[in-house]
Amino acid sequence: MRSLFAKRVDDIPKSFIREILKVIDDPEIISFAGGLPNPEFFPVEGIKEAASKVLTEDGTNVLQYSTTEGYLPLREYIADRYFKRQGLKISPEEILITNGSQQGLDLIGKTFLNEGDGVIIEEPGYLGAIQSFSFYRPKFHSIPLLDDGIDIESLKDTLAENDCKLFYGVPNFQNPSGISYSDKKRREVAQLLEESNTVFVEDDPYGELRFIGEDIPSIKNYLKDNTILLGSFSKIVAPAFRLGWIVMSKEKMEKVIVAKQAADLHSNYFAQRVIYQYLLDNDIDQHINKIKEAYGRQREAMVNSIKEYFPPEVSCTEPEGGMFLWITLPKELSSLDVFEMAIKEQVAFVPGSPFYVNQGGKNTLRLNYSNVAEDKIEKGIKSLAKVIKRAL
Amino acid sequence: MRSLFAKRVDDIPKSFIREILKVIDDPEIISFAGGLPNPEFFPVEGIKEAASKVLTEDGTNVLQYSTTEGYLPLREYIADRYFKRQGLKISPEEILITNGSQQGLDLIGKTFLNEGDGVIIEEPGYLGAIQSFSFYRPKFHSIPLLDDGIDIESLKDTLAENDCKLFYGVPNFQNPSGISYSDKKRREVAQLLEESNTVFVEDDPYGELRFIGEDIPSIKNYLKDNTILLGSFSKIVAPAFRLGWIVMSKEKMEKVIVAKQAADLHSNYFAQRVIYQYLLDNDIDQHINKIKEAYGRQREAMVNSIKEYFPPEVSCTEPEGGMFLWITLPKELSSLDVFEMAIKEQVAFVPGSPFYVNQGGKNTLRLNYSNVAEDKIEKGIKSLAKVIKRAL
Repeated sequence: MRSLFAKRVDDIPKSFIREILKVIDDPEIISFAGGLPNPEFFPVEGIKEAASKVLTEDGTNVLQYSTTEGYLPLREYIADRYFKRQGLKISPEEILITNGSQQGLDLIGKTFLNEGDGVIIEEPGYLGAIQSFSFYRPKFHSIPLLDDGIDIESLKDTLAENDCKLFYGVPNFQNPSGISYSDKKRREVAQLLEESNTVFVEDDPYGELRFIGEDIPSIKNYLKDNTILLGSFSKIVAPAFRLGWIVMSKEKMEKVIVAKQAADLHSNYFAQRVIYQYLLDNDIDQHINKIKEAYGRQREAMVNSIKEYFPPEVSCTEPEGGMFLWITLPKELSSLDVFEMAIKEQVAFVPGSPFYVNQGGKNTLRLNYSNVAEDKIEKGIKSLAKVIKRAL
Repeated sequence: MRSLFAKRVDDIPKSFIREILKVIDDPEIISFAGGLPNPEFFPVEGIKEAASKVLTEDGTNVLQYSTTEGYLPLREYIADRYFKRQGLKISPEEILITNGSQQGLDLIGKTFLNEGDGVIIEEPGYLGAIQSFSFYRPKFHSIPLLDDGIDIESLKDTLAENDCKLFYGVPNFQNPSGISYSDKKRREVAQLLEESNTVFVEDDPYGELRFIGEDIPSIKNYLKDNTILLGSFSKIVAPAFRLGWIVMSKEKMEKVIVAKQAADLHSNYFAQRVIYQYLLDNDIDQHINKIKEAYGRQREAMVNSIKEYFPPEVSCTEPEGGMFLWITLPKELSSLDVFEMAIKEQVAFVPGSPFYVNQGGKNTLRLNYSNVAEDKIEKGIKSLAKVIKRAL
């Protein structure tokens, strides 16, 4: 008998993180497992004023259907901000508003990927992208991340041996590793992709959250037409709105917009109007600075505690921004085993293997610091250190 | 050279309605072309109060990430309402919140359709569904609509000759035709689908908007496990929120939820909380009654004007609810030609052929009455009558 479900559904890895988050739904547990922004910095008052204002001034319009592309002034704001921050010249016609970056990934998969198409992904790679693209049944090629970004030699080999349509990467404070690409690596990546006619899908949800060092230009600066750039309000304003965007050349936009229309007509228009009003009436840079200061302190607390308490065989990344860092245990340890021991000690994290498309990563794990208070960070890392020492 | 885009993108009909709406973006034109609810009935004050309340009482939570399934109390509300309105017993665990019904269609296509799978669709059929499903490259089988619903003989033949996985239909006040299935037809459809193990995708965005006659039970009543029921707040509260839902058995839900997570993690949580608060604090039935009264009057104005001014060779459906009615011109006329003439007379509609998957329908057209004031309806129909007579 035929199967009720489509073949593509069988290929999808069940969200491991989702399962883990269920296990640790206990307020006593110190959880480094989530990926949530710190709600302390949600601009509740600003959003309340913005919502009231748009409803008072333009109520019937803000509640009506709207265009698939998204609210034009919001797209103009996004384009302006790219210019102000990086000198990137982007036209609002090249911007599509999506339901968070996640929908951007789905629309890209839908518009570009035939079954078996080659997709390059970082190792470890962002789980949401792996999940999204998997629905379109591509062939993943994973390339290790080094301290300053993707392994260029391995990228060269992969491009030489395979026809790769897309390369999905997170050059700033990557999820899960916290690693950023150096400017040199960005230029090298851009040149290699230019030569092989591969599109770079540059996911940048954390780019505004740098608390150490200077901003590094987006790869879009070096690979103009062949970069699809994704952004999001989730980490700088609030995630509940599910508002993100895709920047792409008009030729690509024409096709992606048809996919967006078929997917849900358009993103929540009320939310677009509220966010835009909020951005108009508030100093977003000041707001982002507050978030960066806090995350910087939380990250420092975590790195310091790791250095103090973890055994020397354990290494960690030292992110300059974002929300995550990455731990590599000695080869003989399994982070899944450590996870089970850790839960009993009331501390949780995400084991690393789901971030690998071809097995591997068994001795790695991801820690989130943005949503854990500083004093709890030290306590949690101390417990985790005890568990790791016991496992060794 | 390989194509940049996926093969599935080539199959998608460009949205004809979208193109038409661009042509008629002139406030002087009386447009029966759109599909918009009347914004006069958007509960602006109620939404404003609800937004303010949820932000005041639970600000940080309503702005945070949330669950893929959707806000549980909202899903309980929807389940309760099915029970109160139709005695349908649905558990909240069988309900997934989506970005309008449109996203429901996309998720269903994604979860169930392999390339070439048989999908039955009404003729004329809802354009958004044709577009959504087309991305998954099914084989459409279209079955004519009669005055009381689908042509049962033709459905029998189609099911006998083809393996059909899904049947997509809109039994209440269908878009584009305004036709409703009689109770007898619903039972017959359910029985035939039960026998052939075909899933009925019952799209019901207009079901609450009946202004003539009595409600007829949903097909879900007669085909329990094998019906996927879609609903939406767009027509009874406000479309900008993009909030709808899918009702389906748990086995199906388990798969569809993975597709939803990959598509955008979850629907706008702030909007879910606002709508739920609005529903708690207001009498939604009273609100819907106001909409129904107005649409009933608008529909009456349109049907009366058609009877008065259109030549007798032209027939129209007489919907008992919803937002649309359907015109059949004499065979020799092309509604596309009539459209071009009509635009010059400052009146617009949607030609019927895009609602047919296999050509056809050249002499048909759709009229919307919900978003046109009563006095303009008579004026517009009069102009249209003049054009049709000239074309004859």
